[in-house]
Amino acid sequence: MDISAVNALSYEDFVNIFGNVVEKCPLITAAVWTSRPFIGLNALEAAINEFIDALPESGKEGILRCHPDLAGRDLHGGALTRESREEQRRAGLDALSSAEASRMARLNEEYKERFGFPFVVCARMNDKASILRELSERCQNERAAERARGIAEVKKICRLRLQGLVLPDAPNKL
Amino acid sequence: MDISAVNALSYEDFVNIFGNVVEKCPLITAAVWTSRPFIGLNALEAAINEFIDALPESGKEGILRCHPDLAGRDLHGGALTRESREEQRRAGLDALSSAEASRMARLNEEYKERFGFPFVVCARMNDKASILRELSERCQNERAAERARGIAEVKKICRLRLQGLVLPDAPNKL
Repeated sequence: MDISAVNALSYEDFVNIFGNVVEKCPLITAAVWTSRPFIGLNALEAAINEFIDALPESGKEGILRCHPDLAGRDLHGGALTRESREEQRRAGLDALSSAEASRMARLNEEYKERFGFPFVVCARMNDKASILRELSERCQNERAAERARGIAEVKKICRLRLQGLVLPDAPNKL
Repeated sequence: MDISAVNALSYEDFVNIFGNVVEKCPLITAAVWTSRPFIGLNALEAAINEFIDALPESGKEGILRCHPDLAGRDLHGGALTRESREEQRRAGLDALSSAEASRMARLNEEYKERFGFPFVVCARMNDKASILRELSERCQNERAAERARGIAEVKKICRLRLQGLVLPDAPNKL
């Protein structure tokens, strides 16, 4: 699909197609439909990022809280969204050793207990080793820094999901 | 569940239980968890309403666009959320005559074409006759007025969904 096809979509089709570029937050996708037409994929991405940035801090935490744990109960229970399942699978999170799985579960709980939202990282830009390392390191951060870091990861995930749905802009628009 | 039990919920359980009090907008529920503890159901409701009111106009339109059509394809295709299905059923929207169904479909399309978001009304406070009458009348409104009206209906729906999940406050807290 190219951007002119995106711009021609009804809000219903737009939300059906792009509603999960930010995990379980179709509200965001549905909101930026108001800003169409977009001159390119980058403009659509920018509209989403601007909407996120304008939310109060509680709203940013709300976005993080809509994300599943990595290698958590939703993966094992088959309850992940299609996008999350594929991303976690590619990163090897469905094939952890028993020791890795225990460590991941313990660190996820520690992270959630400390911050009140889950650890979010762009799984497609990582593998299980780097995810475990980063999770362990980020548990030491301050809450505000982690909230900002989590949102930065949300935007990376969003960019890759968008790129999977829309043809990239021509080079002169990048 | 009383409010002390609500306040004791992890964010995961809170979002699982209350994530659809605003239709398909768990982001909002997840955001207000930051404001706990709530002194009562009214305080929880107020936190949700304040979050909605603080959104830009595009965000309010985004909320409306997360709602299904009344007596629309999601009802007939079995794709409604549990809450919406029950509310539409109670209002008699699953048992329209052929003429009523045609009129509802035509007016829904007219409304969406005019405003760029769907007609939202609190079905539990209406029946099929009053819904059809209101839909017809509201098609004549201005866009800003309809956006505000739709959001007012979202809040009524939210209030009733919350009341179905949490015991009402004691009278001295109302």
